[in-house]
Amino acid sequence: MFSKNEEKLEDVVSRLLKKLGRTLAVAESCTGGLVSNLLTNVQGSSEFFLEGIVSYSNQAKKDLLNVSEKLIEEHGSVSAEVAKAMASGVKERAQADIGLSVTGVAGPAGIDKEKPVGLVYVAMVINGDMECKEYRFFGSRIGIKKCAADAALDMLRLGLSKKTTKY
Amino acid sequence: MFSKNEEKLEDVVSRLLKKLGRTLAVAESCTGGLVSNLLTNVQGSSEFFLEGIVSYSNQAKKDLLNVSEKLIEEHGSVSAEVAKAMASGVKERAQADIGLSVTGVAGPAGIDKEKPVGLVYVAMVINGDMECKEYRFFGSRIGIKKCAADAALDMLRLGLSKKTTKY
Repeated sequence: MFSKNEEKLEDVVSRLLKKLGRTLAVAESCTGGLVSNLLTNVQGSSEFFLEGIVSYSNQAKKDLLNVSEKLIEEHGSVSAEVAKAMASGVKERAQADIGLSVTGVAGPAGIDKEKPVGLVYVAMVINGDMECKEYRFFGSRIGIKKCAADAALDMLRLGLSKKTTKY
Repeated sequence: MFSKNEEKLEDVVSRLLKKLGRTLAVAESCTGGLVSNLLTNVQGSSEFFLEGIVSYSNQAKKDLLNVSEKLIEEHGSVSAEVAKAMASGVKERAQADIGLSVTGVAGPAGIDKEKPVGLVYVAMVINGDMECKEYRFFGSRIGIKKCAADAALDMLRLGLSKKTTKY
């Protein structure tokens, strides 16, 4: 719960987006549509939610989000670099005010020792700034998806709540 | 439950897709990412799930799914015609074997008398054939999203189960 009224995280974020009159586009890999699903559970989300892209394949990341082959080859699809490119890519594609992205390893199989199950990157372009955080979650595939989606929504909440936000 | 083993609908569909070696792309409007989210809850879904597009705005339907302005103007974004164009559009974009789409009115506000809350169209391109069904669901926004997502997954299940499927 993130407010006195026991609102859900997606309700708080939606209220802030509507209040500020800002639009959002989301690019998801490991969360597989969960971030978009939570946001569109909120009444009136069509006011701010322009589009969500579930770029599960690397081809989709390249075609839809303009993530370069080179970036994926050099850093892997689960990396801060690719998360940032996804956030920028979806923001540009949708012509949205804010771009939010998630990429990670939901499991049950990890990619390798350096990319274990639960490794997640969340990135956001807001107000001209890029932000990216690395997380290490534990639990089931569905549990990791939920933690990752909440981390993305919370990054958005904090970004929208900043007093310095120059909207 | 759709099998003797009490598998969920998304588990049955995933098993069939893997067994047949077919790939899927999903375009969602009113379900807002729920279909993609359910499918990617299943382990190994990256084998068949290429991408999901949550085309909430009409601009996203045009840009990402190649749905024409004329079609949206003539029939409205909630129509059999647009559902079919979304299914074709996402299949082509992702170069997937199957394209599945959902468009509808999740509410709580309807579009007009002819497009009330709960009106949903599900379309699928599979095996060279186009299928489209109209549904009228009742309930809350979240309830209608769930009914619509299940209807889409069930259309896919039936399509994959057909003995005549020429894979």
